[in-house]
Amino acid sequence: MGFLQSLGTYVSLLSLCSSGVADPFNGTKPQSYGMLFFPAFDSIDVFGPLEILQFLGYMHKIDVAFIAETLDPVSSLPLTENKFNSHTHTSLTPTHTIHTAPELDVLIVVGGPGMRSNSLNATIQFIKEKTPKVKQLITVCTGSGLAARSGVLDGKKATTHKTSWPGIIKFGPNTTWLPDKRWVEDDSGSPPIWSSSGVSSGMDLMLHFVETYYTLENATWIGKMMEYVRHTDPNDDPFAINGTTLLRV
Amino acid sequence: MGFLQSLGTYVSLLSLCSSGVADPFNGTKPQSYGMLFFPAFDSIDVFGPLEILQFLGYMHKIDVAFIAETLDPVSSLPLTENKFNSHTHTSLTPTHTIHTAPELDVLIVVGGPGMRSNSLNATIQFIKEKTPKVKQLITVCTGSGLAARSGVLDGKKATTHKTSWPGIIKFGPNTTWLPDKRWVEDDSGSPPIWSSSGVSSGMDLMLHFVETYYTLENATWIGKMMEYVRHTDPNDDPFAINGTTLLRV
Repeated sequence: MGFLQSLGTYVSLLSLCSSGVADPFNGTKPQSYGMLFFPAFDSIDVFGPLEILQFLGYMHKIDVAFIAETLDPVSSLPLTENKFNSHTHTSLTPTHTIHTAPELDVLIVVGGPGMRSNSLNATIQFIKEKTPKVKQLITVCTGSGLAARSGVLDGKKATTHKTSWPGIIKFGPNTTWLPDKRWVEDDSGSPPIWSSSGVSSGMDLMLHFVETYYTLENATWIGKMMEYVRHTDPNDDPFAINGTTLLRV
Repeated sequence: MGFLQSLGTYVSLLSLCSSGVADPFNGTKPQSYGMLFFPAFDSIDVFGPLEILQFLGYMHKIDVAFIAETLDPVSSLPLTENKFNSHTHTSLTPTHTIHTAPELDVLIVVGGPGMRSNSLNATIQFIKEKTPKVKQLITVCTGSGLAARSGVLDGKKATTHKTSWPGIIKFGPNTTWLPDKRWVEDDSGSPPIWSSSGVSSGMDLMLHFVETYYTLENATWIGKMMEYVRHTDPNDDPFAINGTTLLRV
């Protein structure tokens, strides 16, 4: 355990050094996270990274603020896609509004079909105002489209959900969209902005984040607890539009 | 699309025929699901399979009843493991109690640290009484331990979360526990009982269930929407206790 911990720290530092990126957390471990969501969010966009933070919270002090426009429960039900009148969706209750959100080390913007809504002006304004105040911005799935709508992805490189690609990239005409990445790390400015591809890829980004800013051992243990086989190479995307498509069934 | 649909139906039928298993749904598609949970459930145990049912619900009529002992919101917070006083957990609000649960095609019993509680007698009794009335029982992660506590796994084969293995198998002394499986299908009785390994493996079981009882095309589309690379072989478990352990980091 001691050896693995040392190895983890070494590899994390090596990873930071080799990438030439300054540590936005100045050697401390990020503690305060904000999970920003909205009506018709995607469940795993939230609960994939959250499960990782839940396990991480047994090893470090981690606080997640669940942030939405009001404190009312927010349903994941899409407004337009439910032609069979299925009942499969749940609600998530915010702990904070966009007006009461605490200081954050990391802001996570999730995706889901609702990110296209014309009624998210206050949420988009929150992303615009909050991003310069956090140490790291993470987007999951089409959350990068929502971030793009706020302008914070202008001049940045990013990726998004592959099935939604053509519609999402229109939200960021000044963003360099990279279609063949499992996730993208833009460390060119402050804060760094990391964007994942669709849904499950948010877990890969988050585990990589744990490996980078906590320890390799933490990331490995969480992956093992979740019995999740990580994709560790951001450049190897099995769902890339111009690369392979999923034929495994 | 027509070809893939036909292929999907063919492969599904072939799969059923080759396994020699009678279709518990008599050629109809399962519609009503019950998700049984309890304090300190695991988030992805619920939301992994649920995300799949949410996507499935755009193609078929799917209803999920969220079932707990009372209608009060149920927290995923473990009672004993939070020594850093982290705040990372959420609550899920039931739609039904164990006394008002509707008729179900499929009962899903999830896991999580709370399944070990001594205060789950009513939940355990519900599993015992409901199981003979459903067409399929699915357990996720340590949910198989909870099912075992009710006796419904007596004489059955099953698997569970690998890290929790020694403690969980004690709940089912009359169960044949298989340690090297991503998931296990026991089709020896009515209802069939399928049990997954830990956390993420519930998504593989659920996608295999979709492939088997809906269509291959549905399962492939959902995997693509979730950008989730399925494990399609239940006998290939990267987290098996006596097999390989996760070295990918």
